[in-house]
Amino acid sequence: MSETISEKSEGRVSYHDSVEEMVKKIREDGMSNVFDRYALQEKIRCKFCLEGLSCQLCSNGPCRISEKTGQEKGVCGIGPDAMAMRNFLLKNIMGAGTYSHHAYEAYRTLKATAEGRTPFKITDENKLKWMCEKLGIDTAQSINDMAFELAVILEDQQRIGVEDQNVMVEAFAPKKRIEAWKKLGIYPAGTVHEEQNCVASCLTNVDGSHISLAMKALRLGIATIYNTQIGLEMVQDILFGTPTPHEVNMDLGIMDPEYVNIVFNGHQPWIGAATILKAKTPEIQDMAKQAGAKGLRVVGSIETGQELLQRFPVDEVFVGHMGNWLAIEPLLATGTVDIFAMEENCSPPAIDMYAEKYQVTLAAVSTIIDLPGVNYKFPYDPAQADETAQRLIELGIENFKKRKERQIKPHVPQKIQKAIAGFSTEAVLGALGNKLDPLVDVIAKGQIKGVVALANCSTLRNGPQDWVTINLTKELIKRDILVVSGGCGNHALEVAGLCTLDAANNIAGNGLKAVCNALKIPPVLSFGTCTDTGRISMLVTALAEHLNVDVPQLPIAVTAPEWMEQKATIDGIFALAYGAYTHLSPTPFMTGARQLVDLLTNKAEDVTGGKIALGDDPMKVANDIEDHIMRKRKELGLS
Amino acid sequence: MSETISEKSEGRVSYHDSVEEMVKKIREDGMSNVFDRYALQEKIRCKFCLEGLSCQLCSNGPCRISEKTGQEKGVCGIGPDAMAMRNFLLKNIMGAGTYSHHAYEAYRTLKATAEGRTPFKITDENKLKWMCEKLGIDTAQSINDMAFELAVILEDQQRIGVEDQNVMVEAFAPKKRIEAWKKLGIYPAGTVHEEQNCVASCLTNVDGSHISLAMKALRLGIATIYNTQIGLEMVQDILFGTPTPHEVNMDLGIMDPEYVNIVFNGHQPWIGAATILKAKTPEIQDMAKQAGAKGLRVVGSIETGQELLQRFPVDEVFVGHMGNWLAIEPLLATGTVDIFAMEENCSPPAIDMYAEKYQVTLAAVSTIIDLPGVNYKFPYDPAQADETAQRLIELGIENFKKRKERQIKPHVPQKIQKAIAGFSTEAVLGALGNKLDPLVDVIAKGQIKGVVALANCSTLRNGPQDWVTINLTKELIKRDILVVSGGCGNHALEVAGLCTLDAANNIAGNGLKAVCNALKIPPVLSFGTCTDTGRISMLVTALAEHLNVDVPQLPIAVTAPEWMEQKATIDGIFALAYGAYTHLSPTPFMTGARQLVDLLTNKAEDVTGGKIALGDDPMKVANDIEDHIMRKRKELGLS
Repeated sequence: MSETISEKSEGRVSYHDSVEEMVKKIREDGMSNVFDRYALQEKIRCKFCLEGLSCQLCSNGPCRISEKTGQEKGVCGIGPDAMAMRNFLLKNIMGAGTYSHHAYEAYRTLKATAEGRTPFKITDENKLKWMCEKLGIDTAQSINDMAFELAVILEDQQRIGVEDQNVMVEAFAPKKRIEAWKKLGIYPAGTVHEEQNCVASCLTNVDGSHISLAMKALRLGIATIYNTQIGLEMVQDILFGTPTPHEVNMDLGIMDPEYVNIVFNGHQPWIGAATILKAKTPEIQDMAKQAGAKGLRVVGSIETGQELLQRFPVDEVFVGHMGNWLAIEPLLATGTVDIFAMEENCSPPAIDMYAEKYQVTLAAVSTIIDLPGVNYKFPYDPAQADETAQRLIELGIENFKKRKERQIKPHVPQKIQKAIAGFSTEAVLGALGNKLDPLVDVIAKGQIKGVVALANCSTLRNGPQDWVTINLTKELIKRDILVVSGGCGNHALEVAGLCTLDAANNIAGNGLKAVCNALKIPPVLSFGTCTDTGRISMLVTALAEHLNVDVPQLPIAVTAPEWMEQKATIDGIFALAYGAYTHLSPTPFMTGARQLVDLLTNKAEDVTGGKIALGDDPMKVANDIEDHIMRKRKELGLS
Repeated sequence: MSETISEKSEGRVSYHDSVEEMVKKIREDGMSNVFDRYALQEKIRCKFCLEGLSCQLCSNGPCRISEKTGQEKGVCGIGPDAMAMRNFLLKNIMGAGTYSHHAYEAYRTLKATAEGRTPFKITDENKLKWMCEKLGIDTAQSINDMAFELAVILEDQQRIGVEDQNVMVEAFAPKKRIEAWKKLGIYPAGTVHEEQNCVASCLTNVDGSHISLAMKALRLGIATIYNTQIGLEMVQDILFGTPTPHEVNMDLGIMDPEYVNIVFNGHQPWIGAATILKAKTPEIQDMAKQAGAKGLRVVGSIETGQELLQRFPVDEVFVGHMGNWLAIEPLLATGTVDIFAMEENCSPPAIDMYAEKYQVTLAAVSTIIDLPGVNYKFPYDPAQADETAQRLIELGIENFKKRKERQIKPHVPQKIQKAIAGFSTEAVLGALGNKLDPLVDVIAKGQIKGVVALANCSTLRNGPQDWVTINLTKELIKRDILVVSGGCGNHALEVAGLCTLDAANNIAGNGLKAVCNALKIPPVLSFGTCTDTGRISMLVTALAEHLNVDVPQLPIAVTAPEWMEQKATIDGIFALAYGAYTHLSPTPFMTGARQLVDLLTNKAEDVTGGKIALGDDPMKVANDIEDHIMRKRKELGLS
């Protein structure tokens, strides 16, 4: 029997006290907000949509599947399983496409930097050389020439067709997985090609087989990680430095109304990084002071914040990270934000009323962003990054003056949480003395039973904000399972204090606690953003190669305990292709598609070695994951 | 007041008698079918989905907008207009992606042909040279080298980013439109880049502005036509010949049960063309005869059929075209089909029961196709085209034997309709003595009031199959408006007898009738498939350039009177960007989004010069189009 966790659940909208405090104020201020809109929508949900049995693609629709009343197929003839899987694949395509867009901007930025046209520089030359060696690029040329060539090859690797060599998969995927994928016919071409193939398959009257659509999703997932994510994250390391563990400040308490506060929100660190560099100059700080502020600060929000956090020290200019996407409306309501600069999700579409009420200037710093109330749009161009940063600073100072003129009353929850952020494969190896054996040893001895990779968002569907993510993680580390985390879920854990040595001492089981203390690492390793799913896989791949076993044999699991958007679903699908036991909560919209659910949660294990596990109760999920890990330990001959 | 057209409407599911006859048999045979499934779905439609006020993207959803009960926004905060436009843009992306996939296969095929690795050859060398000249490719090299270089450049033009030169738009778009698009910020990069940008914009919490999303759709539409469609159609001309007008056979009566019948269905002609070439050899015909058949025939279905029809003569081997997608189940029920080979939409997902009942072998000849009952999958590879054709022929002969063994009783409606197919810009110019002045003259004199481009599908939402398409077209030609048609709607008109000189004499107005007789052309010029939207635009562009006016000034209009799938919507969006009055029926799922409807049907005219017109009544729509054309004539100083 699983004991139910009720901590911070009853009557709450969030696990975090700071968010609870702000939501109280937001309600007092009479503002619409994501939490109350959720409650309203709960009253009019469509059960067909919830079960995946609704299709709106073509003009013969919208169709629904209702076996009871005789609608066993849509007008075209599609059945429940293919209908649900097609809808799900479409979401995966959106996720893959968004990662591809991010990568496109990364490679453009690297090219322009190599040409000396950006405020950035090649920060990690060793990583550049390492990547070039991995991909067969001549390292005898200049740093800039090497960087340019790398960018060209990485962009090309996103686009390659079925007749081209997949250099990225060959360089980074586990050898035994490559064999498995070839056998299954899911060894991919480039991400962009796979997106195109999938999107054409999803057109009305094209692919009507849920099995075929599922296999295409797996193929797309593999391409997304290898041909897009890993390249883009490595390029960000090259440009801004490979993450290294260091102490940072989290939660809404980092906001100070007496400063000009420029918040960067989304996933792409370009303009945020350019602004930090610029804001560190005395000229800018003086400009802010002349406007009556104590200075000018940069604040990290969600994944952009994490990208900055893991590479820039927290100091007087870059003050830390506010939390994940459900904390955005609460952040804006603190009355301390001057610029909210957005370049990707999550940039919630109804924050115009917050901008108006609390005097915030909304700015888009990517072509993909727009929403009501955005009066300043700076389509991203690497060569214009410095100029855009300058404009944002000027707009921020102007906003600060207006905020003071309008006497916006600040309300800042007095909570700052310390966390250790900035893990990476290199950092983990560094902590282990540059070899994997110590990790293998502690796993073999059972001090650490296994490793769980947590990568996801934050949602309200399965409880208050971050409730499942945090409680599940606590249960895992109690069971001596090391958690490696990325995404909005990672910020949840950072804000909740789980990325600390204190958490090792107060929450983790005795085995894990000892390891954490010996290595001076927290029981939850903050590995970055959802875009770092590829980075996390690199650590697991290193482990598999080191032990000469295939991924499904390892005592590991993946969890996305609060997936919300479409990049999370493609990460989850990759994990399945990678051969991992992959927990997803909430349950995707497919419960009405019984054969599909059986395929993903059961039959898949015979196909990829991985499978999808469902469940919204942290205790039960932790038990299931532990069972899986113990089974894998046993199969490897570990006690 | 508009008179209502009731011809072939009451109690029917199709305008076509042959389809009506087969549906009767299908029902007698107790088979599920698209027409009856439509009636069943009518009972359980979701009104939120119909109005565009439903979103299933993220795990906080599904959401609905219901102003009455207080759900004015989704959980994330998205409003009705952005919700509906985002859903619509997602469909446009699917259409653009499918065209891109088709183009990718076209360019692969041209490359492999240039290398001598396919059964195809460079059939239209003049067009190859013309394209090379247009794109700045050296024409002093060998035909094969030229072809290879063209394929590489065209594929590259699909993929170019924002910093690259858009060679295709510069070569093919009207000069005045290019200026307009630059001013509006919708001058595009390559289709694949725009798809990626759009798909990232559609992610949850990215672009929440219906205006921004609509502008992105326009930009994607322009890329789709210039960077994808025109290139791919020109390549098909180079490979298989530029269409020339000739008489063909249409409708289900072309089927003969005593032959081995191999049907090609979808949009991509590769394997169909390879099979025609092979089937013309005595060896293959002898093989079929030895199996007891009178011979082996190739039959064209929907757009693949049209691609073949406009380039191959109808003869003893290639016997013509069966009709559009709603005629597929009726075709299979004739008990005469041995192979139904599919490579794109529309390949309806529930035809497995037809395959079983009437002994049809289902085969996929593209990676994107799969559905229950497909036992033979040949992922398309140009170098394997001949081998795939051979296998299909062998499977067809095997199926013929089984069909005879099982004594499948054939039922073929005795109706064959003649049509003139195979128009192209070159063919029209040819008919005019290689200059546009005669066309301009008859328009100036008012013999032809204007030109309407009809490009779309076939749907049941606005009446029986093809009812709106055919009746609208009749009304237009009665009013001396020349119709240029592409897509499944074009097959409707071909099957209905409107692509004949008889139609000019019996239906068209006196002015158009005289022009048709003088030039020996029908009042409806069959310009091919939906993929020929680009080809149709080339004729209009030539007219605009010849008169030195911008597209919105021309007495033309576009109609999609029965759009069904997602390629039709991107064609419609292109027409809007192109500056055309663009009629769409059925009304897209956006009626609940009032600002969006106002933007597209009203305000757009001040933006692009084009606008969307709605309406399901053929007479009313014809009146509106005529009004628009007469207004444009007046503005040009024509009587």
